[in-house]
Parts: sequence; structure tokens; C-alpha cells
Amino acid sequence: MRPFFPNVAIIGLGLIGGSIALELKRKHLAKKVVGVSRSRGNRREALRRKAVDEAFSRVGSFLSEADLVVLATPVNTVLSLLKEIRPFLKKEALVTDVGSVKAPIAGGGFKIFKSSFIGGHPIAGTEKSGMGAAQLGLFRGRKWILTPSAGTPRSSLTRLKGFVKALGAEVVEIDAQVHDRIFSAVSHLPNVLAYALANTVASLNDSKALRLAGGSLRDMTRLAESPPEMWRDISLANRDNVLRMIGRFEGELKKFRKALRKGGGKDLMRLFKNGREFKVKKIGGRQ
Amino acid sequence: MRPFFPNVAIIGLGLIGGSIALELKRKHLAKKVVGVSRSRGNRREALRRKAVDEAFSRVGSFLSEADLVVLATPVNTVLSLLKEIRPFLKKEALVTDVGSVKAPIAGGGFKIFKSSFIGGHPIAGTEKSGMGAAQLGLFRGRKWILTPSAGTPRSSLTRLKGFVKALGAEVVEIDAQVHDRIFSAVSHLPNVLAYALANTVASLNDSKALRLAGGSLRDMTRLAESPPEMWRDISLANRDNVLRMIGRFEGELKKFRKALRKGGGKDLMRLFKNGREFKVKKIGGRQ
Repeated sequence: MRPFFPNVAIIGLGLIGGSIALELKRKHLAKKVVGVSRSRGNRREALRRKAVDEAFSRVGSFLSEADLVVLATPVNTVLSLLKEIRPFLKKEALVTDVGSVKAPIAGGGFKIFKSSFIGGHPIAGTEKSGMGAAQLGLFRGRKWILTPSAGTPRSSLTRLKGFVKALGAEVVEIDAQVHDRIFSAVSHLPNVLAYALANTVASLNDSKALRLAGGSLRDMTRLAESPPEMWRDISLANRDNVLRMIGRFEGELKKFRKALRKGGGKDLMRLFKNGREFKVKKIGGRQ
Repeated sequence: MRPFFPNVAIIGLGLIGGSIALELKRKHLAKKVVGVSRSRGNRREALRRKAVDEAFSRVGSFLSEADLVVLATPVNTVLSLLKEIRPFLKKEALVTDVGSVKAPIAGGGFKIFKSSFIGGHPIAGTEKSGMGAAQLGLFRGRKWILTPSAGTPRSSLTRLKGFVKALGAEVVEIDAQVHDRIFSAVSHLPNVLAYALANTVASLNDSKALRLAGGSLRDMTRLAESPPEMWRDISLANRDNVLRMIGRFEGELKKFRKALRKGGGKDLMRLFKNGREFKVKKIGGRQ
């Protein structure tokens, strides 16, 4: 297969960046893949697993070869990185990212790169992190959101879509603002809840409780295994939406509290029943 | 092996009652196992899988043979069932239950049966329900709480502990009140949160959001697949503790909201970091 982008630079060799690199090299989807990571461990691991041809600790003139640059660093570093890499890139290079928040990045990316930037978000994150967690097949059957702007040339979008599909993912085009609203509900809120639940149980300071806890607590706090920096950055980058969604959740939780306080069970039954119906019919089970 | 209780009656052939019956028959831990269920489907399934020798739709004089009666019905029916079965039982019969709330049952059980009742709670529930979900090995390596009272004869407790161990579980003796406090935190609260999260996303009425949702939403609402009646009954039976725990959770969530509103990220980082540390060091991962 002719590579969509012969020379790919991936900045950030964590779970997502590392997995993209692995796919590209193992499936010969690029001629050359270079990786950039401040973490020596991730660089070494990427070289050891032959996920990259070369690994650098910081951006530099080597980026001038890149046909595609993928920013796979924490969301709060993407904007400054865009500015940093700009002087090194050739005119035809396309730039994308994999951040979980899109509106600020899409806006900033457009300002800096005009039509050469297309924001992206592969829905493939897990609570695991780092190059050690990177794996082939991570994107298989997953959705990968792209947020092109009005000025994005069709040819660039087509090329990037081909690249994403070759990684095994299904492309979904969506407006960056809509993306952020949606993900505050289906991803950022659930993550905040997992951490808040962990903190609630921590506040009890009850070792017996932990010895007796079954699967419910473990499952409902699984997401809290993610790096705290990541969730600090995502929730700050999508602050207004996340705040609104926490408020909505508080409202729903309050309904349970009120129904429970009132007793009787009719209102309470309706709340549990609606939740179950929505879960079973609309959200569905494990993928 | 000499059966701990030659003749066992199990009232309620759901996930737990059905799995107990299966273990007893397949491992020859009892000479005779009879099941009681109002659900024709569960009775048929129990007979088809040879989990019981006989199945009845309601309690009756056949209970006079039972050496052990296990109440495995929803928590709100246990107390009335205790009264119902009393006239049928022989004097030496021991009675236990598997309910997720213990203080009201232990208190009521003691009043009705004096020392012949010992409350129990196997920590083996899942979001699955019904005899169809019953399985051999469900209790293997799981904890099974017993809440004996001061008047419980040592010999009865020893016998019941032997029975529970033979089912593969590890016995933990604990005070009924302490049990209910602990489980409001590690089980009842997480379940309420799963339903409240499902209701929050339902309230958005956004089909695009559901198409794009990744694993976070699915995982964090998995518990909402449980029967709504069960959670209505459990949360009502343990109302004061559950209300207190919802309040504590609201307080923890509010900290995230305040830190997020304030911005900056330092407070937010501490909240996410504490949550992750507690998760990784104290709660642990999937069993």
C-alpha cells in the first residue's frame, strides 16, 4: 500500500501516540516514523518495540521531513507545541492531534496553521497510560473523530481520513464545539465521578470497608487509575461543559436523595427503572 | 463429605439462590435441595439444570423437612417471609438469608426465630439476575458475611460456616450495623451513581452522544443493568446510611466543581491525584 504520509512524526509516545507508531511501523503504513517524548523510558520502549525509527527528546529541525505530524501529548500542551513546531515544518505538512478536548485546539490550530491543521480524537483511551501500554489493534473498530474547519481542503481531509482508516478506526466528522459538549457528558463526567467516588471512600478511613468491598466499588473507580494530570488538563480545557455536566448530574443525584428521603418507593422505582431502561436500550454493554 | 445440612430449602431462585442450589447439588453438599420461586421460568430453569430436586411456587408444609432454609429473595420480602415460614419449620432448623442489608433483617430475624436465625450476605452479586445467570463457582474466593447475634449458639454458627466454606466462600463475621454502614459506601452508593449517570445522559436526549460514547460511559453505567426493584428495596432498607453516603459523595463532587470553577489546576490536581492514589493503593483493580 502506498503510504498516505511517507514520513510521520509523532509527538508524545504515550498510549495513543505509541499505538499509532506501532501500527504505522508494523503494517508498513509509513516509510519513516519518528517519535518525540520527554520521557526517556517511553523513548527507549518505543525504540525497543520498533514503533519508531528514531526517537527525540524534543522537537527540532528533523521535523522538516514530516508529511504528517501527530500531536499526542496532554491537551494543555498541544497549543504551545503547535507554535513550537511551526517553524520547522514544510509547507505541505499536515498537522493533527489526538486530544480529548477539541474546541480550544481546533481554534488555536486554525490560527497557527490555517488549513494545514485538522483536530482529531480517537475514542480508544483506557485507564492505562505510557508507551508500555501501547498496543497493535487499539484503534480497531473504534471511532476516530475529526473536526475539520470550513477552510480545510478536501484533499487534506481525504488523506487524513485514509490514514485513520488504515489504523483500523472509523472516521466521524463533527464540529469541535459539539464534540466537547458530548464528551463532557459521556467521558469527562464519568471520569470525574470515578475520582470523586474514590475520594468519598477514602474519606471514611475504614480499612474494613476496603477488605469487604466487592466488584461495584472496583468497577466504579476503575477510571481513577488514569494519570491525574490528564484529567486535570482535560477538565480545565473543557471547563464550562464539564461544570454544566457536573451540575446536571448533581440534579439527577438529588432526585434519588429526595425520593429516598420521602420513602414510599414509587418515585425511587421510577428513577432506577428509567436508568436501567436507558442503560439497556441505549447505552448498551461492554464493547 | 457428610452434608452440613442434609435437607436444604432455598427460597428465591435468582442469581444467588440459584447458584447456591447448583453448588449443593453438583457437589453433593446436601441430600435434598428444594427451591421456592414465584417465577415459573426460574423454577423450570432450576429443575432443568438439576439445581433442585423439587420446585414450589410458594412456601408450605414441605419446609418441615428442611435442616437449613436460605432466604434468597429481595431484601424487603425477607422479614415477611421469616414470619410466613416459621409455622412450617422443625425446631432444629437453621435459617439464614443472603440480603444486601443486614441490620433490619438481623433484628427481625432474631425477634422471630431467636437463635435459629443468622443473617448472611455473600459478596458475589453482579448486574446479572435470575436463575439463568446462576453459575457454579460464583462464590469461589468471595467473601460471605455472617452477622451472628450475641445469642447465636456456637454450634449453629460453626455448622453454617462449614456450609458457606463448602460453597467456596470465605466467612467474615461482622456486626449487622457495621455491615450496613460499610455497604452503603462500597456498594449501595456506587450503584446509585451508575443509575444517576444513566439518567443524566438520558436527560440530554442526544443520540449522537450515544453513538460516540466510548468505554467510560458503558463501564460507569454497567451496574444500572441490575433489576430496579432490587436497588429500590436495598436503598430503602438501608436508607439512613445511603442518604448519608450520597451526602458525602455530593461533598466530594462539590470539591471538584469548586476547584474547576476556580481554575488554576492546583486544587484540581490534588483531588485527581488523591483519588488515583487511593484507587491504586487501596481499592485495587479487577478481581
